[in-house]
Amino acid sequence: MKRFLPFSASDESHLFLTSGLALYLPRPMNETKSYSPGLEGVIAAETSLSFLDTEQEEIVIRGYDLLALIRQKGYSDVVGLLLDGELPAPQRRAEIETEMTKAEVPPRVYEILKLLPSQMHAMDRLRTAVSALAGFDPEANSADPASEKNRAPRVIGQIAQIVANLHHIAQGSSPERFSPEYSLAENFLRVLVRRPVSAAEVRAFEQSLIAYSEHELPNSTFAARVVASTLSDMYGALTAAVASLKGPLHGGANEAVMYMLLEAKNSQGLEALIRQKLAKKERIMGFGHRVYMRRMDPRAQLLKEVLQNLVQAAGRGQEYVEMCQVGEDIMRTEKGLYPNLDYYAAPVYYLLGIPIELYTPIFFAARTVGLLAHIIEQHSENRLYRPRVLYKGPRGKKI
Amino acid sequence: MKRFLPFSASDESHLFLTSGLALYLPRPMNETKSYSPGLEGVIAAETSLSFLDTEQEEIVIRGYDLLALIRQKGYSDVVGLLLDGELPAPQRRAEIETEMTKAEVPPRVYEILKLLPSQMHAMDRLRTAVSALAGFDPEANSADPASEKNRAPRVIGQIAQIVANLHHIAQGSSPERFSPEYSLAENFLRVLVRRPVSAAEVRAFEQSLIAYSEHELPNSTFAARVVASTLSDMYGALTAAVASLKGPLHGGANEAVMYMLLEAKNSQGLEALIRQKLAKKERIMGFGHRVYMRRMDPRAQLLKEVLQNLVQAAGRGQEYVEMCQVGEDIMRTEKGLYPNLDYYAAPVYYLLGIPIELYTPIFFAARTVGLLAHIIEQHSENRLYRPRVLYKGPRGKKI
Repeated sequence: MKRFLPFSASDESHLFLTSGLALYLPRPMNETKSYSPGLEGVIAAETSLSFLDTEQEEIVIRGYDLLALIRQKGYSDVVGLLLDGELPAPQRRAEIETEMTKAEVPPRVYEILKLLPSQMHAMDRLRTAVSALAGFDPEANSADPASEKNRAPRVIGQIAQIVANLHHIAQGSSPERFSPEYSLAENFLRVLVRRPVSAAEVRAFEQSLIAYSEHELPNSTFAARVVASTLSDMYGALTAAVASLKGPLHGGANEAVMYMLLEAKNSQGLEALIRQKLAKKERIMGFGHRVYMRRMDPRAQLLKEVLQNLVQAAGRGQEYVEMCQVGEDIMRTEKGLYPNLDYYAAPVYYLLGIPIELYTPIFFAARTVGLLAHIIEQHSENRLYRPRVLYKGPRGKKI
Repeated sequence: MKRFLPFSASDESHLFLTSGLALYLPRPMNETKSYSPGLEGVIAAETSLSFLDTEQEEIVIRGYDLLALIRQKGYSDVVGLLLDGELPAPQRRAEIETEMTKAEVPPRVYEILKLLPSQMHAMDRLRTAVSALAGFDPEANSADPASEKNRAPRVIGQIAQIVANLHHIAQGSSPERFSPEYSLAENFLRVLVRRPVSAAEVRAFEQSLIAYSEHELPNSTFAARVVASTLSDMYGALTAAVASLKGPLHGGANEAVMYMLLEAKNSQGLEALIRQKLAKKERIMGFGHRVYMRRMDPRAQLLKEVLQNLVQAAGRGQEYVEMCQVGEDIMRTEKGLYPNLDYYAAPVYYLLGIPIELYTPIFFAARTVGLLAHIIEQHSENRLYRPRVLYKGPRGKKI
């Protein structure tokens, strides 16, 4: 927490805006501005989309509890809810599902992906593809909310198809298309793993997509809104969000969890590994969250159930349930930290046979609807993001 | 300005951080958080790179006045200053110039550009190319400040070459390379216009590059820092900045100014056009700036001189000097608004014969060094950006 004097007496609009108390308390002679690194605790947007209620431990999505949506609804229901503000009636839900699954990825976007080196980070390949998609949308430059809402299901379907094919293309295989015969979630999983999938597997995967669909204002959503606020278009804002989500402090965590579990091999190994990392004061991925603080991410609790159900249905993978429990217990006892969503999403994806490099791209594909809803909201009532800095460099140097 | 109750009593770190006054005034019973749309007036970063001193009307770059740098220094000097913190000695300046001009753009990045439709927005093509560049850098995933600083001159050179060739590729021509025989600025202009250029033209272009090189925390720089704060890499952060700069409320303004001048044809036409737009309450591009408020952007004043010098040296283009003065006079009288940098950069680029669709990409290429310096600074003392929202949607809905 830092304090400093305002820039100038003439700069009055800046003086008032950062100090809420100035509204109902007399202003002191030397008013100061506060600086919160990382904007922690700072309100940066108004939204009707979602809210992390840390007191009641509820993730509110358009008025509904996210956990109820994960338990009782399909991914296309949540897409409709986020875009329209209401859970879709059967006809609207069917329309969204059809638009998502019949969406075609322009062949040149796949050609571009083939030109990228196979060892390039999967999120960097995805970022390039999302950016390139703009070239094949005649309304690409529009920041009109109505146009964006119309195009949203198609873009969600295109991005899911790109992610489903990302690893196959890097392996030299041809991309596969989605089929209107299946739901988006089933198509997504089928193309990802290219084998027959069970209803239990599809449901587990779909529940993970809903869990990832929207989550207030994490860095990627904030980045998307910041970019959208220049009235730049949705492809630009989505591209920024891919770039953000790649970061190890954000979306990259789910992959890091899986590498840790694989390195540990079993429960004893995980206990030893975590204790070793704790002794070296290294960060343990999959635990803690800026907003949930010392409580458990409700999504993690639900994904833990999803993992258990999947293991039961498949009759294999019990070792991951046990390992994850051991890790959870140690971290709670030693650090008072609870798992986040990534911690339990990782073994779910592993048991489904999804390549680890795709965990973060899947997170992005699932979140595309939440991002689009935020972009549309930003464009509906826009104000350019343009904050200020605390300058700590030299002054008055002469050439 | 909005007020609302804090989320929860247990959420104390959030309570303190947005209210600077809480530090030295007794906290009231019902503390509120302030919300400043667009984060106007909110401090969002500490920096030693630059500062807009609105009181003294000085743009401070690492302690120097930007106007002095534009008048007396070369672009490679400013690159060194921003990256190293000091104006470079001759040897370091030569090293930077060589690294920038000998940098090669991977042929596959040009192949990707050829696959994109020629009618795709130039900034969208640039965004895709910047994203793709990551695939050809073995250190692409590193967020280590030392590695980033080492790679910075090469990336600046690559991006300048991509921008210089962007229009030619869309026209079906082959890209040209830079030559270590010339400075970066001269190479850039030569490849852009593909004709012999005069020393006066090179100097005018170089001065515009310095004017655009760094400018505190505009939306694009903020977007880059937000993305970088996940410890995502510099290509991701730069990609987000391209996306931001495309927006009509940000970098897109310089192109809009030129289209306005061309539509107006002459001084009388411009006066009529501006008065017509004012009557219809339409936005006039190239005027006003969030931070400068009601004063003139010092860079605009200097670019006005650059335009005059260029017209004098070339013996043509006097009509643009006159038109711009007429527009400036009307806007000052009618709205109390002054021109910003984009207003005078546009006719400079037009007289140099640069395609209008490249004005914003050139702004980005010039700003790449400032963005990289901010990314390096963010990675040197990082804190994840993760603000909160003011939720105004429904609660307690049941499925």
